[in-house]
Parts: sequence; C-alpha cells; structure tokens
Amino acid sequence: MAAQGVTPQSEDYARWYSDIVRMADLAENAPVRGCMIIKPYGYELWENIKSALDSRFKATGHRNAYFPLFIPMSFITKEAEHVEGFTPELAVVTHGGGKKLEEPLAVRPTSETVIGHAYADWIQSYRDLPVLINQWANVVRWELRPRLFLRTTEFLWQEGHTAHATKEEALEETLKMLDVYADMAINECAIPVIKGLKSQQEKFAGAVDSYSIEGMMGNGWALQSGTSHFLGENFAKAFNIQFLDENNELKYVWTTSWGVSTRMVGGVIMAHGDDKGLRLPPRIAPYQVVITPIWKSDEERELVTNQASAVQAVLAAANLRVHVDSREGLSPGFKFNDWEMRGVPVRLEIGPRDVAAQSVMAARRDVAGKDGKLAVPLEQLGVRIPKLLDGIQASLLQQATDFRDAHLHEASSYDELKEQVADGWSLIWHCGTPECEDQIKEDTKASSRCFPLELNETWNPEGETCVVCGKQAFGKAYFSRAY
Amino acid sequence: MAAQGVTPQSEDYARWYSDIVRMADLAENAPVRGCMIIKPYGYELWENIKSALDSRFKATGHRNAYFPLFIPMSFITKEAEHVEGFTPELAVVTHGGGKKLEEPLAVRPTSETVIGHAYADWIQSYRDLPVLINQWANVVRWELRPRLFLRTTEFLWQEGHTAHATKEEALEETLKMLDVYADMAINECAIPVIKGLKSQQEKFAGAVDSYSIEGMMGNGWALQSGTSHFLGENFAKAFNIQFLDENNELKYVWTTSWGVSTRMVGGVIMAHGDDKGLRLPPRIAPYQVVITPIWKSDEERELVTNQASAVQAVLAAANLRVHVDSREGLSPGFKFNDWEMRGVPVRLEIGPRDVAAQSVMAARRDVAGKDGKLAVPLEQLGVRIPKLLDGIQASLLQQATDFRDAHLHEASSYDELKEQVADGWSLIWHCGTPECEDQIKEDTKASSRCFPLELNETWNPEGETCVVCGKQAFGKAYFSRAY
Repeated sequence: MAAQGVTPQSEDYARWYSDIVRMADLAENAPVRGCMIIKPYGYELWENIKSALDSRFKATGHRNAYFPLFIPMSFITKEAEHVEGFTPELAVVTHGGGKKLEEPLAVRPTSETVIGHAYADWIQSYRDLPVLINQWANVVRWELRPRLFLRTTEFLWQEGHTAHATKEEALEETLKMLDVYADMAINECAIPVIKGLKSQQEKFAGAVDSYSIEGMMGNGWALQSGTSHFLGENFAKAFNIQFLDENNELKYVWTTSWGVSTRMVGGVIMAHGDDKGLRLPPRIAPYQVVITPIWKSDEERELVTNQASAVQAVLAAANLRVHVDSREGLSPGFKFNDWEMRGVPVRLEIGPRDVAAQSVMAARRDVAGKDGKLAVPLEQLGVRIPKLLDGIQASLLQQATDFRDAHLHEASSYDELKEQVADGWSLIWHCGTPECEDQIKEDTKASSRCFPLELNETWNPEGETCVVCGKQAFGKAYFSRAY
Repeated sequence: MAAQGVTPQSEDYARWYSDIVRMADLAENAPVRGCMIIKPYGYELWENIKSALDSRFKATGHRNAYFPLFIPMSFITKEAEHVEGFTPELAVVTHGGGKKLEEPLAVRPTSETVIGHAYADWIQSYRDLPVLINQWANVVRWELRPRLFLRTTEFLWQEGHTAHATKEEALEETLKMLDVYADMAINECAIPVIKGLKSQQEKFAGAVDSYSIEGMMGNGWALQSGTSHFLGENFAKAFNIQFLDENNELKYVWTTSWGVSTRMVGGVIMAHGDDKGLRLPPRIAPYQVVITPIWKSDEERELVTNQASAVQAVLAAANLRVHVDSREGLSPGFKFNDWEMRGVPVRLEIGPRDVAAQSVMAARRDVAGKDGKLAVPLEQLGVRIPKLLDGIQASLLQQATDFRDAHLHEASSYDELKEQVADGWSLIWHCGTPECEDQIKEDTKASSRCFPLELNETWNPEGETCVVCGKQAFGKAYFSRAY
C-alpha cells in the first residue's frame, strides 16, 4: 500500500516522482520558472554525493579551482558545434551596474570556453602539462520542460577540465573519469550504471566523443547520470591552447571535460524509491539512523530520552550519521512513516520496555514489516548497526541490479526492439547514424543511450548490420525511453 | 629584502598585494572585467576557510540548502532600503532561451528576498521555528573598482538566513554568529578581529542593525571580514512571513542574515604577508608542510626520493597536509623561494646527508634565516612537526595581535583622530550620524569601522559627546582607512 498522499508508481510514475520529492522534503520549484530550491534534506544528499566525488577527484590528482559565472558572448561562438548546441539555452545578461553592457554576457551553461581561454595563457610548455582541474559550480541552461533535479534551468554540478600533451593521455583521462563516475554511482549510490560511448548525435556539443554512465530507473527508463568527453583538439584550436613539446615544437593540447550534476539526486530517488517513499543507500543518506524515543508519562520520557542520547553517542562514535527525533506533539507512528518517506536506512525505536531489556528495536527501510525488524542488545550496537548498514547498501545495489538485468533485452529485429523498449532497454546492432536514431525515436520514443563498452570489442565489426536500417553496424547500442 | 619581482610593502602596499596574489598563484582577473579566476592554490585556501566555517555552522544547529541564482526584479523592490542599496549593483538577465523575458531577472546580490519568499510558505506555526539555514553560493554585485578577492563583481560566500519567534532569539542568533565568525577568524586565520556594531550609514541595506568583525591589515587599514545582521521584522513584513504563536495569534517572524566571503582570503594575505610572500596560518594552509628532496647523482636521487616518501607518509598519518615537490629541472633554491612565496608554514629539505643522519632540516616560514631552521630526527617527526605547526599558528596570531595593538589609538580631539588614522585605527566618542561620518571621510578618508562591543557598555552614555561634532555620543567608534 502506498503512503498517504503518494500516487503509486504503477498508476503514474511521473506523479509518484513529484509526490516523493515534495513529501520527502527534498526540493521545490523556485519563483523563477525552471529553477529550484534545494531544501536541507535534498541538499545534504547532494553534499554526500559531492564529497564522494570530490575525494575521488583528489585521489586521482585533480585540484579544485573556480572560474567566472559570466562568459563573453564572443567566447561561446568560437567553437562551431558548441555555439550551435548551447545558444538556444543561454540566459543573457545585458545590463550591469545600471548600464547597458557593450557586450552581452552569457551565464555559463558549461565552462569549456572560459577555461580554454585561461588555459591558453597558463600552458606554454610540456612542463605545464597535464593540467587537471575541477570546479564545483552552478550552471544555467534554459529549460522549457523543467523537472525537479532531472531538468532545471539552474543546476549544481562539477565540471572537470583537463589538458594533455598527447591524444592517448587525454583518451585515458576521459575513460579514467568515466570509471570514477561508475565507481561512485555503483558503490555510493547503489545504481548499477552501464558505461558506454554516446552516439554522434547525442554527444556533447564540441566533443569528438562523449561517454556516459546510464542508470536504469524504477520504470525501466534510462537516466544519463554523468558524462566524460574527449574533446580532441577542438577547444585547443578554438582558444589557441598551444605548448612547446620536448623537441621544441609548437603543438595543440588535447582536452577533456566531465560532469556530474544534481540530476544524480533524481537518479537516486528513481532507482530505489518505492510507494512508501525514498530508500536511500546508507553511504549517501543524510541520516543513516534515526532514533525515535517512545514514552507516555514524564517519567518514561526522561528514561527513554536519556537512553536515546546514549545510543546516539555510541553510534556517532562509530562514525555514523545519527539523528534523534525528539519533535513534540507527533505520534511515534507519524514519525515512523515520516522517516520511512525520507528513506532513512535504519530506524531505531526506544520505549521503556527496550530500556528495561537493554536493547533497541531496529527496522530496516529496505525490508518491509516484521522481516525487517530486529532487536539489538545495547552492547552490540556499535558493531551490528554499521554491519546492518553495509548489508542494506549491498541489498539496494543487488535489488537494482536484479531489476536492471530483468529489463535488459536484446533484439534481432526492429519489431522486437519496439516491444522491448516498452519494458526496459533494448540492445541492437546499430549503425549509429542520426537519421536512423531519429526514426526509432519517432516510432518508439526510445533514444540511443550508449554503445556499452563491455559489449563492444571493436567498432564497425565486419558483417554486422543495423537491425533497423540494414546499414553497416557501428556497434551494439542500447535504446530506451529516457529522462 | 623583498623577493624578486615583489614591490616592497613600504614602497606601494597596493602593488605589493597584486604582486603576491599573482606570484603566489592565488587568482587572476577573468576576461569579464571585475570577475576573477580563483586558481587551485587560492581555491584550496578558500576550501579550508569554508570547511572551518561549515563545521561551526553545523555544530550550532544550522543546515545547508540552496536557493536560486535568479531573483525576479519585483522581489528586490519589496523592501524599501534593500532596493535602494542594491539596485545600482545588479546584473540583469533580460533574455533566456532565445527570447526576451517578460520580467527581467536579477542575478542574486544576496538572497534575503528570494529566501524570505520561501520562508513565508514554509513557516506557518511556532512549531516551524526557528529556521536555521545556510547556503554556499556565488553572488554578483557590479563593481567599478575591482580588486582580486577584496572587491569583485562575482564572489563566493556563505549566507545564513534564520527566522525566529521572538526578537530576543533573533538578536541572540545575530550575536552568536558574530562570535562564530570571530572564533573562526582568530583561531583559524590568526586574525585578531574586533567585533562591533556598524553605524546606521554602514549597515546592510534592509537591516535594523549590522554587526561586523573588523581585521587590521599589514598597512594599518581595516578589512570588514564578516557581517551579521539583525533584520528585525523588515523582511518578514516585506514578504509576509507570519506564524501562529502558542496562543494562536498571528505574528511576524524575526529574521537574521550573516555572511563571510572570499574577501577573507584577501584578509589572510594582508594580515600576515611580508615582502617575501604569503605567510599562511597552518590551520588553513593548503599545504602545511612541503618536502624538497635534494640530490645530484641518480643514486642520491633514489635515496632522497624514497626518504621523502617515507617522511610524507609519517606526516600524512599525523593528519597533516603534506606535499613533495618533485618537479624536474628546478633548483632547490628556486623551490625554496617558491614555497616561501606561497607561505607554506614548514619546509623540509632532505638531502643525502640528512638521510645518513636520519633527520630532516625544517625551516619555519614565520622566522627568517638560521633562527627558523632546525634539524628534526626522523623518529620525532610525527610529534614535533604538528607541535611546530601549532607554534607557528600561535606565533602568527601573536604577531598580528601585537601589530594591531600598536596601531590602535584613542583620540580625544578631531586633530588627534586625523593624525592617528594615518597610522592605524582611532577610537573616538562618536555621535554615529551619517553627516558627521561623511565629514570625517572627506577630511581624512577614514570611515567608521564599528562601535566595538567590548568597549561600549551602553549606548548614548550620559555626558559623553562626539569628539568631532560635539553632539551627544552614541558610543565609542573606531575610524580608519578601509578596504
């Protein structure tokens, strides 16, 4: 049974999503259409994703920096594909300090151009390479059909921008960061993403090749959850980023860029949520454990409140994020449902009987009813609760993987593909041309997600033809409905 | 002797500042006038300040959230003083998604308005109070005379926004956050700031009262380094933020806001820097220790490199931020000067002789020449280097405090004030009126910094008159040149 006020997933998945975002208090629409307010609980979820990414970036030798929000319009136009891709989405500042500006400024939709301009100045010699920089920032892309977290005019993200002496090194970086993203998605967000190459039509405007991690949502649709771009010499040529190599020859650098955004929060909601609310992977949950003290008399109250504090201290000492729900005037049942809605992995109840028994009653969010309940003796809390959380993390990943695998199909005819995309993703031999992709989208609403790296040993394999148009296949590609 | 390329402070303090920002690789001007690029070393300094603040905010019960960059122009105009104060500084978006917007959007100069609008919806009952929220964000205020870190059109900051049921509670919050800022400035940045009340002319546009922490820079000027505002019911009335109290009466909330920005980085540069470069307090230094291996032959190279890695591991295990400078083709002397410029608190040199002696040679940034050098036996590193860093932190604070105290003056006549502001800050009995402040500024270029809380037991003390205009004194105020 769905929680009160929640549209069941089976009835209307889009409404279910909006209900959960609202009722779990994650975010809401801002007064300016397309923008969002990320509320504390939603922001803390993002902070945990952010910190999981940031430590991985630092461990792979990247440093953070900050580049400006405003980009001269003339910069955007320097890379031909880039200007075509981004111009329709720009927010433009025309007035500043009470005056009309001589040159309008774009609010950054992404920062390849302004960073390219800086790198041209910073990079002179092979000794200056590689440059490995990331920035945490807000970006703006005008959005006509906004959806909280998934598509918003302003969103938060990180964008990595690197420059290398050789093509090989830049390609290696592109794939290394794709691996970092996959590792984060799988091991922190418990989303078993698939890594792949985007089609030429779906790639980043200005890239030679784009790679993505694609996650499967609870309705079988795909969510592109992070992208890593090999930019070749495109931006180096547009912004004249050159260096003297070891033989004193002037060469263009090879650049990459890669990003993950607050969209990932939407992915976490849809990969794990059910009709009772969110289900958060413990590693990124704002509260891993919530304690609800239960009492009737004032005497009981003091007893259980003290016990709750003691339990909180034990768990905090085990480095867990613990919260005691001491709100007044709300019943334990209300609180139980509230934290269930917010997806807290483990809820602990402490009543007078638990104090007497020197134990607490734990309830897992991922296992409903009695099967998910267990009494834990106080002296074992510091060991068993962390283990329980590890188990929940693994169980959410396993459930998402089982669900994904049950909805991954392979088609050997266009008719099969049409059936399969109604129930998940369909893998086909595909030509990779825009025309063929457009046809499939028109017929089925499914788009090319990626050419999965694991399933493509080589490109343009001899003798394989596109299941839809019959031309030479570029590789095996997943098609599906997508956000 | 000043480092090569650095204008001595005594010759031209403003040029010294620019030289240091550039040569220590902290930041540079962006292509859009007034904006800045914060380079990795500068950004890491900001990250450490940020994290020192963030943990204090969380420890005092605040949660982070995120509100939108764009604010409808109509919001800005709702609070009378606010619109007057901020309109001249706004950047305005007039076009989005290729179309002219019906209502232009302000790029947030600060977020009281858009947050007030949200709070009006979030707050219904006394049970919803207090609301204690902070956001980390970029803001834009058009700047005609930009200066890296100190005054930039776009800057990074945090802005806390709280709402309370009573005036007393809001006032308590305002002063609590002022204390948090002072604690951070003193104990992390080693800047002995003075807490005080701003004059009515210098307060935040829309506040009832503004408080600030004021730091003294190396040239005796003041830098307002953080502000905490008691907003009274001003924004509550402008945005209709009302709640039902325990007696079911409808009341306006009382709000506060408070902010610290990347300006603080400028404060750290100017409070501690000398003619050889930055001097960074260990608690916020990106690298607390830099190790330079010194070798001549390949054999020596392997020896010292291995030793450097071992030392790095020991110090990292003691939770220090350590970097090994293994750059090729640069002399040890060049590296020594480079890290001196960047203000690294402790530099360690490891040559073949140090390996043989099983010790390292440590050099303190805060003590020049031989007096700052000491040999540390390997087995004592993990204990003595952390202690050394604590000593350097304390020494920088002591030096800044001594300097400050030597440049704090008290004047009993206007002539005395005029002399004193050429050499630091001058404390006077002051009326607190804008007219008198303007006169002083015209005559001396010194502005009212604050009415220090420690030196004012009461306001409008009977029998005390303004040293400048002779009217009833509001209290004792510091005047000085300021950034």
